[in-house]
Amino acid sequence: MCDLETYFETIFQCQEPKNLYEPILYTLMQPGKRLRPQLVHLAAEMFDGTGEDADLVASAYEMLHNFTLIHDDIMDKAEIRRGRPTVHKKWGTNVAILSGDALVVTALLQIHKLACNPEIVLSVAKLFAQVSMETCKGQQYDLDFETAENVTIDQYLRMIQMKTATMFAGCLKSGGLIANADADSLQALYDLGIHLGIAFQLADDLLDVYADTEIFGKAIGSDIKDNKKTFVYLKAMELSDKKQAHQLQTLFSTTTMDETAKFQEVKTIFDAVNVKQATEEKISLYIDKCFEDIERIHVDETKKSPVKSLIQQLKNRSK
Amino acid sequence: MCDLETYFETIFQCQEPKNLYEPILYTLMQPGKRLRPQLVHLAAEMFDGTGEDADLVASAYEMLHNFTLIHDDIMDKAEIRRGRPTVHKKWGTNVAILSGDALVVTALLQIHKLACNPEIVLSVAKLFAQVSMETCKGQQYDLDFETAENVTIDQYLRMIQMKTATMFAGCLKSGGLIANADADSLQALYDLGIHLGIAFQLADDLLDVYADTEIFGKAIGSDIKDNKKTFVYLKAMELSDKKQAHQLQTLFSTTTMDETAKFQEVKTIFDAVNVKQATEEKISLYIDKCFEDIERIHVDETKKSPVKSLIQQLKNRSK
Repeated sequence: MCDLETYFETIFQCQEPKNLYEPILYTLMQPGKRLRPQLVHLAAEMFDGTGEDADLVASAYEMLHNFTLIHDDIMDKAEIRRGRPTVHKKWGTNVAILSGDALVVTALLQIHKLACNPEIVLSVAKLFAQVSMETCKGQQYDLDFETAENVTIDQYLRMIQMKTATMFAGCLKSGGLIANADADSLQALYDLGIHLGIAFQLADDLLDVYADTEIFGKAIGSDIKDNKKTFVYLKAMELSDKKQAHQLQTLFSTTTMDETAKFQEVKTIFDAVNVKQATEEKISLYIDKCFEDIERIHVDETKKSPVKSLIQQLKNRSK
Repeated sequence: MCDLETYFETIFQCQEPKNLYEPILYTLMQPGKRLRPQLVHLAAEMFDGTGEDADLVASAYEMLHNFTLIHDDIMDKAEIRRGRPTVHKKWGTNVAILSGDALVVTALLQIHKLACNPEIVLSVAKLFAQVSMETCKGQQYDLDFETAENVTIDQYLRMIQMKTATMFAGCLKSGGLIANADADSLQALYDLGIHLGIAFQLADDLLDVYADTEIFGKAIGSDIKDNKKTFVYLKAMELSDKKQAHQLQTLFSTTTMDETAKFQEVKTIFDAVNVKQATEEKISLYIDKCFEDIERIHVDETKKSPVKSLIQQLKNRSK
């Protein structure tokens, strides 16, 4: 696996027009977990596939991910991402729209550089398009939910599957594809991505309330501040009595209340209904599914250790 | 060639989420010249290629074109397109960003439905990605030029080649690709697209000043109002004496002057330096190149008539 920062610099450093590539490089060079590239490589390595093709696909998915971040940050009016100003905050909305567009197109170009046989390139490219589509749909549902009267837990889970988990699935399956994995294993890798992605997002929802800010690296409580109805909120509503539910609903409607006071009041109800445990149980359920999916991958058990370690890490994620 | 409106309705009518697909369908159903789909079909038919594959590629390029319109309209703060409110005006910027994103991804999915052999699908998909990239770069240069002190005619021509002509080239070459055209013809089709695209854009620049509004179907003078330094302005500057050049520069800096008075003053100078004739000569030069490109396509002369007619139409375009 190549060093992604160096790789991105090589691709973008001297490209023209400068005003298009500067925000792209700024976004890609921000420190992040690089989870999606890791998933591509883990899957490819399971089937002894490494080298440039894996780097190409890994970079493409990291670009796709960052494209969604740039455009979502405009839509969410987010000013800070990973401790730095967002692209639209730093350069304005026009630059953010266009550099996002260019980023997803660059991702496509990366996929078309693959050296493996054309049918596989085509499968990777088609999957990439399908994943991109699901991500857009997921983002639309997320926006729709902001103003929806009622969102069920099932609807929420379907939304995060589209918006987050499908990309995990795309990474893992693509890694398998370029390493010539068999059809059953490809399906297992895809399913693994879906379950892992949902677990990852539920953990993210939980960390927004219960993270240790020093380890988490970003401010907590932003979902509560923005009245975002995440799994934690929806589950808490389900577990609440009538009075608590009414309080939560009121708290998640206000836009004027003091941020700290609101967070404390919400957290008091969350604690009272023990939503932390309920969410952790749901995460565990998806993590269990992940291990079942791994069973269905046709490689020696020893080859499965790295992906199992990653899942354990994500299960215990604190940031 | 299928009826595009019906085709788009079939694809998008019942798709969910509704809020994502409604603005997409609204955009695609607006009456337009459908020039890009025509180019795909003309090239394919020259090599006896027709049917569903041509419809798929034609629809993909129409989608790509409309994706650029939706996002460009946000950047240009354009409120009206083809006589109707633009997407961001009707639904807001967020919807316009996301539906643009979804539209370009849908275009990709269309290409991946192609039934021809995988190597050709791959070539069409790769070309599509390259064209999309050039279009983004062209749009960035266009934005850069708005605030640039000096733009040369050569820089302007390179910009419109990227922003407009590459897509024409992509359409023609893709049409050839799916109909198994030989390599020389494919190159000739690509070059034809470039030259036709530049001629088309120069004609567009000219129509903004000299169109008959009733035939043109939209208001003229918008480039002048927006201080857009099109070919007509740049060429007029070149043909102007010192006093005229100073006047033009001043007129293209103001944002407060009465629209009609400004248009009249600009047009008086344009007429005095005879920029209409100079632009028409430049267009003719590119149209001549188009006919030279057509010579290099390896099909019977009779097969070339439809594309020749289209070029003649575009040469004499009044809307």
